[in-house]
Amino acid sequence: MKLKDLYMYLRGDIHRIETEMGDAVLEASPVLEEATLQLLEAGGKRIRPVFMLLCAKFGNYDIQKLKDAGVALEFIHMASLVHDDVIDDSDLRRGKETVKAKWDNRVAMYAGDYLFGKAISRVSLFKEQGIHEAMSQSMHEMVLGEIEQIRFKYEWNQNVRTYFRRIKRKTAVLIASSCKIGAQAAGVSRREQRTLAHFGHQVGMAYQITDDILDFTSSEEKLGKPAGGDLLQGNITLPVLFAMEKRPSFKNELIRSFAGGLPSREKMGELLEQIIESGGIEHSRQINERYLQKAYESLEALPDIPARRSLYDIANFISSREH
Amino acid sequence: MKLKDLYMYLRGDIHRIETEMGDAVLEASPVLEEATLQLLEAGGKRIRPVFMLLCAKFGNYDIQKLKDAGVALEFIHMASLVHDDVIDDSDLRRGKETVKAKWDNRVAMYAGDYLFGKAISRVSLFKEQGIHEAMSQSMHEMVLGEIEQIRFKYEWNQNVRTYFRRIKRKTAVLIASSCKIGAQAAGVSRREQRTLAHFGHQVGMAYQITDDILDFTSSEEKLGKPAGGDLLQGNITLPVLFAMEKRPSFKNELIRSFAGGLPSREKMGELLEQIIESGGIEHSRQINERYLQKAYESLEALPDIPARRSLYDIANFISSREH
Repeated sequence: MKLKDLYMYLRGDIHRIETEMGDAVLEASPVLEEATLQLLEAGGKRIRPVFMLLCAKFGNYDIQKLKDAGVALEFIHMASLVHDDVIDDSDLRRGKETVKAKWDNRVAMYAGDYLFGKAISRVSLFKEQGIHEAMSQSMHEMVLGEIEQIRFKYEWNQNVRTYFRRIKRKTAVLIASSCKIGAQAAGVSRREQRTLAHFGHQVGMAYQITDDILDFTSSEEKLGKPAGGDLLQGNITLPVLFAMEKRPSFKNELIRSFAGGLPSREKMGELLEQIIESGGIEHSRQINERYLQKAYESLEALPDIPARRSLYDIANFISSREH
Repeated sequence: MKLKDLYMYLRGDIHRIETEMGDAVLEASPVLEEATLQLLEAGGKRIRPVFMLLCAKFGNYDIQKLKDAGVALEFIHMASLVHDDVIDDSDLRRGKETVKAKWDNRVAMYAGDYLFGKAISRVSLFKEQGIHEAMSQSMHEMVLGEIEQIRFKYEWNQNVRTYFRRIKRKTAVLIASSCKIGAQAAGVSRREQRTLAHFGHQVGMAYQITDDILDFTSSEEKLGKPAGGDLLQGNITLPVLFAMEKRPSFKNELIRSFAGGLPSREKMGELLEQIIESGGIEHSRQINERYLQKAYESLEALPDIPARRSLYDIANFISSREH
């Protein structure tokens, strides 16, 4: 079973959004065009447009209107990925060379700016004030999340609260906005808009926690980047935070291991082993499950249409995935 | 005579926009707050809000509404400056340490993203579709201009046409938009909106050409950065393009001088000397004058209110300034 099978009936519309995305970047300068097309072709789950479209199914679904929101959401997401790669100094994403690796940091920075600009120009087509607000709010929170991620790098004295705030800003807000925007563009009632945004928030949190767990449990091959990479880069995620809480001696060992530069591959293996043994991964999975449960509960308040089933299935899928 | 004296009667309103800008960044994370406040305190001419306000004087001037446009325009400008400094690897701007020098490239990148986000959230308050379009168009063109600047760095075979396209995108579009947005927010007639936007375009071109001339003629002390810095960074501006046109031997010398890395301070002095002697600076000044004349001519089609006089004076001032 693949994710795409869960929203077969949206395939045409997602394809339409992807075509629009491709057309939108064609008029750029040669380097930008090549860089953004490479990003587009790298694919991705298109989760944000999918959630947006599904939430619009609860109202007057008009793909002609929705496609612009889909392009904007995916471009904002892609822009943040390109800028992330500059920060993380990543050469690979989804197993492929990143923009900053193939060109350089300057091109990656402007490619991100370009996509932000393109996203905003799509949003400007909407009459609904609330859609503008949701988009700018998402962009704003995402940046705050990224800045917090830098600030808390290699900061061993942070707690889970800072982690939850960070992933909310970095990931959950844009997914919640995708749901809200789809609902709003389709004229869904305010109450149902809120319910769908709430669903998006819970799923977004679960999505990021899953990602952070997979960074430890998935193999290099499946992940398209080395396992434990987050920790190595100083990005302290939920499994590590729980492991440090459960075993104060582990926290000291971590601090020592990173004190004189990056730990060796062997040392990293030991550290990963301890995170698993301490129950840090298991505890993270429980938290993940709790977010998912809340997401499912919010769906219960909504009318029983096929889109509701798809939202359920997709939520379930993305937080039980293996890569 | 200082620039500020030319719009004394706007002082209160500009101050109000500056206060709003300061308040807008207070809730950011500590690093972002410090970085953006430093940018704000570094000052600047606030030329974009000034043009925007003056153009609004031709209609129903409502500072309560206009201030949001002023904050957005200045934030977009500031964001592009921060990102520029990353690209140019600049440690000084207006004689002060840049964000990227004081913190690092990562903070500078996100500080720029943050300001873009803040700008967009201000724009989202406007009902006028045209204002959204003008803002997103400006951001879009600015990025294309920046990318072109990278692409044409150390490219000795470019011509003046690529230069004009670049500075239009990099500078003139946002100034033209400032004029248009002020006019639009004040409900000025469409015809006058176009005239004011046209004025902004011509002034914007003159503004950038002046900047590019000053980079050669102004002293290090007045400029806050070394003279000839643009050329040293491979940014080939109008005086150099004209000098190469006028003296093919100079072009060859330039290529030779940069072939084995950056030229020495002494060699740079010789090159600058030749740019002056060839008449490259003088020719650039003539072109500058031509843009200014066109700007003045467009003002003639507008009603004779005090703001028109100010637009005239400011246009005159910024392209006859010495730093």
